[in-house]
Parts: sequence; C-alpha cells; structure tokens
Amino acid sequence: MSDATRDIEALIALMSRLPGLGPRSARRAVLHLLKKRGQVMAPLAQAMAEVAATARECVSCGNIGTADICDICRDDRRATGEICVVEDVADLWAMERGQSFKGRYHVLGGTLSALDAVGPEDLRIPKLLSRVRDEGIAEVILALNATVDGQTTAHYIADALEGAGARVTSLAQGVPVGGELDYLDDGTIQAALRARKSV
Amino acid sequence: MSDATRDIEALIALMSRLPGLGPRSARRAVLHLLKKRGQVMAPLAQAMAEVAATARECVSCGNIGTADICDICRDDRRATGEICVVEDVADLWAMERGQSFKGRYHVLGGTLSALDAVGPEDLRIPKLLSRVRDEGIAEVILALNATVDGQTTAHYIADALEGAGARVTSLAQGVPVGGELDYLDDGTIQAALRARKSV
Repeated sequence: MSDATRDIEALIALMSRLPGLGPRSARRAVLHLLKKRGQVMAPLAQAMAEVAATARECVSCGNIGTADICDICRDDRRATGEICVVEDVADLWAMERGQSFKGRYHVLGGTLSALDAVGPEDLRIPKLLSRVRDEGIAEVILALNATVDGQTTAHYIADALEGAGARVTSLAQGVPVGGELDYLDDGTIQAALRARKSV
Repeated sequence: MSDATRDIEALIALMSRLPGLGPRSARRAVLHLLKKRGQVMAPLAQAMAEVAATARECVSCGNIGTADICDICRDDRRATGEICVVEDVADLWAMERGQSFKGRYHVLGGTLSALDAVGPEDLRIPKLLSRVRDEGIAEVILALNATVDGQTTAHYIADALEGAGARVTSLAQGVPVGGELDYLDDGTIQAALRARKSV
C-alpha cells in the first residue's frame, strides 16, 4: 500500500468512527470529498480544525463555545433567574431550537447511573447547587430525558435542591404536537390523561 | 448568534453535505466530534486537510492518488497487458478489494448519457483508446455497472476498440455468491441461465 492509499484509508477509518457512518458510508463520503476536493473537502477540513482548536466547555454551565464563559452565560438578558437543567449539549441545542426558553442552562454531562458507577460528582451537580445559591435562582426547570436514568437524576436533583429557595419544575409530559393517539405508547397516554386540563 | 455558534453551525452545514448525512445526523456527528476534540476531531481535520492538499487524479488512468501517475500505473508488475475499465474510483476500489485482477485500470469518470449530454470526450474514452494503442494492451475488461447507461457505454467502447487488436470482454452476469434464487430479479436469472456452464 502506498502513501496515498494509506492516507485515504486512514481518513476513511477516522470518518467511520463518526456516529451514523459505518465503513461503507465512510468510504462513500470520502470518495465524495475526494471528488470535491476544492469546494467541500478543504473548507470542511479547515472548519473542523478551527472548531477543534477553539471549542471548550463553559466553566459555568457546561455548554460548548469558544470562550471560558459561553455566549448564553455571558448574555445579561438571559439572567432571568431560571436555569434549565439538561443532560447533554444536544438537549441544550434542542431547547434553543424551541426558541421559548429565555433563561440560562446547566448541562449535566450525563445522568446518574448505578450500573455505570456515575455519581453526582461525576456530573455537574455540585456546580448546579452552587449556581442556584450564588446566582439567586428562582426556578430550576428539569428538562431531563423521560428515561429511567433521566428521571432518577431528576429526583436526585429535586431532593438536593430542597431548601435552596428555588422552585423545581419539570417539562410537561403528554401527547406530542402532531402526535396520533393510535401510535402513542401506553405510558404517554396515561401521563397525558393524568395531566389533563380544562379547555 | 456568536462566533462560536456560527463556527459550529458552519461545520454542521458542511458535514450535512456529505452523502449519507442529513442535517440531523450531521449535528449528531459534530456533537460527537466536539466531545472528542483531541482524540478524533483534530486528527480527522488534519487527515482531511492532508488528503485535500495532496490528492489528484492519475493522468493515465484517472485513479485518485497523490502523484501525477498513480501507484497502480507506476507498478511494473501490473503491466499485464490487461486494462479493466470502470465508471468510477469507487468501482476501482471494489475491484481491488476483490484482489483477483492483477492488471491496470481505466476510470471513465461516468457513463455516456444522452439525457445529461455526456459524450465520449467528457469521459476518459479517447485516453483509453490511445492507451490501448500505445501500451500494447491485449485485453480490455469492461467492468461497467449493469445499468442501461453502463451497458450503452460498454457497447460504445467495444465498437470504438474494434480493430485496435485488443480482445474486449465484460464481467460475467449471473447469480451472486451467497445469493438465493428466490430473491433474485428475473433479468439476473435469465442471464445466469443463458450463461450456464457444465459442472
């Protein structure tokens, strides 16, 4: 195998480690890049190198940005006294796409898990407690996933925040917008019925 | 939107232009890269930049390598007097994975297509004819896809090579190894029956 083939094979191997790409689709993606070396491959490599060099986690909330304090934490208009707790940066992005939360976030970086030996110190829970104390937070919104681990973590945080003076809420559970009853699982229908409201 | 978000959004937009990745999976891939900035993102960016800077098409066969003449064309052991004609570099890679062809290749870069106004000069067909003449080629193996355009191109090349002194062959059609008759299309079964051989 020559240098050229080795370089290309190494690139395919690296690409195939991305989620959603296997060896076959990585090869297809690299071929596409090879054909569009100037228009796509070089700009992509540069954008990736730039982000890799500058990206870091916000020391306050755990969001990913290019400074020690992320844009949301730096934005004074978002000092609403509300903190939305999410598991992951992906969830923060999803909340931001919703465009209705105006406060700040706190990214845990995972959920508590006895099986994987993930305790409160492994997540950003101590930092959350100190933020609630120091930033005069009035409400903590738990936007954790509706999984067992997510809900365990939510309960743990609610307990830990008891007496901290902040109201603790969680996202409503119910029928998704555009959802059809026939396709919903039993648990969702039960939750939606329990949380029914007058029209 | 801040610089950081803009950089990350730009990266997602570039990634989502890869085949097999949509906006959602590009976002997921970029998040994965952001979490593994050191181990995956930086090496991937560097590998991509290197390949983008060095990759080019072989002036003889059209294969992608890092020199004007690719490794296969430079390898004297592959001067077997056989040229395997393929549509695309992906097909060349597939043939190489098969590890049974020992000659050289000729990458057309597509197929003839009246609809898309692709003529012989848009492909590497004139170059193929001159190679057959100049390199003393004894056999041209047409390994084109079994599509209408692929077969049209194969017929055109076979006609153009008439009188050039080289034998023109094409890959056998039949039942794929491991294939079950029940799942095969009618055309394949007909072709396999026509090309039957004594055991």
